[in-house]
Amino acid sequence: MNKGLFLTVEGVEGVGKSTNIAFIRQALESRGIDVVVTREPGGTDMAEEIREVLLKNRTETVAESAELLLMFAARAQHIESLIKPALAEGKWVISDRFTDATYAYQGGGRGVDAEKIGILERFVQGGFRPDRTILLDASVEIGMARAHKRGVLDRFENEKTAFFERVRNVYLDRMNNEPQRFEIIDASKTLDNVQRQLKTVIEKIIDTSV
Amino acid sequence: MNKGLFLTVEGVEGVGKSTNIAFIRQALESRGIDVVVTREPGGTDMAEEIREVLLKNRTETVAESAELLLMFAARAQHIESLIKPALAEGKWVISDRFTDATYAYQGGGRGVDAEKIGILERFVQGGFRPDRTILLDASVEIGMARAHKRGVLDRFENEKTAFFERVRNVYLDRMNNEPQRFEIIDASKTLDNVQRQLKTVIEKIIDTSV
Repeated sequence: MNKGLFLTVEGVEGVGKSTNIAFIRQALESRGIDVVVTREPGGTDMAEEIREVLLKNRTETVAESAELLLMFAARAQHIESLIKPALAEGKWVISDRFTDATYAYQGGGRGVDAEKIGILERFVQGGFRPDRTILLDASVEIGMARAHKRGVLDRFENEKTAFFERVRNVYLDRMNNEPQRFEIIDASKTLDNVQRQLKTVIEKIIDTSV
Repeated sequence: MNKGLFLTVEGVEGVGKSTNIAFIRQALESRGIDVVVTREPGGTDMAEEIREVLLKNRTETVAESAELLLMFAARAQHIESLIKPALAEGKWVISDRFTDATYAYQGGGRGVDAEKIGILERFVQGGFRPDRTILLDASVEIGMARAHKRGVLDRFENEKTAFFERVRNVYLDRMNNEPQRFEIIDASKTLDNVQRQLKTVIEKIIDTSV
């Protein structure tokens, strides 16, 4: 059976995930690969409803475990209802964020114990992991400056610089622990330069996957 | 510190939970007890939003683990944001359903492994449990006949009789395993009879709790 490849794209706000995911999609499609682009939290109607609950600005204090359970509820639905069926059809799935983001944002950013995240990761995913992960990395100053230009910030984007430093550091740690899964892109460079880096990485992923 | 009491009311559709919870509230208030009535899934703005996601009739197949995680996300928020603060103020909290309902509906009804439910119960609640639970019990035939009279059924109510038989059996099993926590009410009787049973139970709970 011709199984597809599950590719995730990670990075803090302002590193250009949307633009670069569109570029990656195009590069894969130009090689004849059938691509599904999705995002977390979200990706299905129900998971997008959970995303709205998560990202809503509210006065009610959100319990740490409630946030974590909602993230993984959306993820469970996303995996069963979209990701696994697409992979089974041989499609490549590109997800704008996945579980690395939970370790980075809830773990690094909010200080949630990584072991708590691990409990829910095993509960929902078993051994299911991304095949490859592209980390778009830039200094927090550069990322935040770009994110602010985009306008209104949601509950997660509306955080302090120290928060995003911790998020970025978890991403870098995870990359160092799983160098075979991660590809890092220096997203502080010009768009043209970033896309040249991406092109090289995409060729490498295709060559080692097909 | 004068801690309140956490009382849950359980039972399948049509056993008269709403009516009888109003009666319990009144009986407690007439004894000078400060009462908060709430429900699951729900009880806070955010938890009610999660409830809407859970109960919505949808064409998308809901993943078993997604449903379970949403239930416990709502519960986590409910506990931290409403139940524990009210108990800390010495109030009595009456919840229309709690974790017993997850074992009964998702476990008994849908066949979710009770150990999976136990993982999330420990994750969210630690050792937090209801102090007392009133089980309104009636045959499924009687309950369903009453529920149908109320009109539109949501995604959970719109199930087959065999489903509700399994739900009821889990409630009865849990009562048999924790007789010190549960009080059973024969809800197949007339409202007048049920409320006489309830009055006796409420007096007993007050006498052993204050």
